[in-house]
Amino acid sequence: MTTQELAQAFTQLCRDGELDEAGRRYWSDDIVSCEPMEGAMAEIRGRAGVEQKGQWWYANHEVHKVEVGGPYVHGNQFVVRFTMDVTPKGQARMSMDEVGLYSVKNGKIVEERFFFGGRASA
Amino acid sequence: MTTQELAQAFTQLCRDGELDEAGRRYWSDDIVSCEPMEGAMAEIRGRAGVEQKGQWWYANHEVHKVEVGGPYVHGNQFVVRFTMDVTPKGQARMSMDEVGLYSVKNGKIVEERFFFGGRASA
Repeated sequence: MTTQELAQAFTQLCRDGELDEAGRRYWSDDIVSCEPMEGAMAEIRGRAGVEQKGQWWYANHEVHKVEVGGPYVHGNQFVVRFTMDVTPKGQARMSMDEVGLYSVKNGKIVEERFFFGGRASA
Repeated sequence: MTTQELAQAFTQLCRDGELDEAGRRYWSDDIVSCEPMEGAMAEIRGRAGVEQKGQWWYANHEVHKVEVGGPYVHGNQFVVRFTMDVTPKGQARMSMDEVGLYSVKNGKIVEERFFFGGRASA
């Protein structure tokens, strides 16, 4: 499976709302997940931790809508854009605009790195 | 100037149609420019070569419209999205959808790496 093919398949699952399944299917066991913030979420290593992070996120955000753009491919990396309409627990409904940069090795995603575009109250 | 500030200023120049000026102002002299293709354009090193590439591009593409999204920031890197309505010399008018991943060091862009999303005839 080429990076282009993996990128297409991964992005299609995201577009279908199957973000969890996209990770389960294409993350390496050694996946590293990087968020543009300080603290415990900044860098998580290993599938178990990254799955936990996903569970935490879904438990703490009500997702109204996700729009997915891409993928954009270069060599062994690809970019996916996510525009999300969410309500974080106890906060106002908001729009989140971010991109993920994914690095592929041996047919699996070994790193996902998120970039924040903007957040605005809806 | 933080990466966030540089990213905002760079992206605003692009949004204003001043892509050339954005490069002139924020590229390092040692800028490396990477395109997702084989051949001479795959990796160009140094400001002179990258400026030449820009001149070649503008001489060979009629640009009807550029839409700019972002920036999306993480640490010393940021992503900008470009949606272009162009006519390459001797070819049909087309839509190009790509993102640039920019790496910043000492207040200058030291690498730009482009990712192709899709190209469609208009």
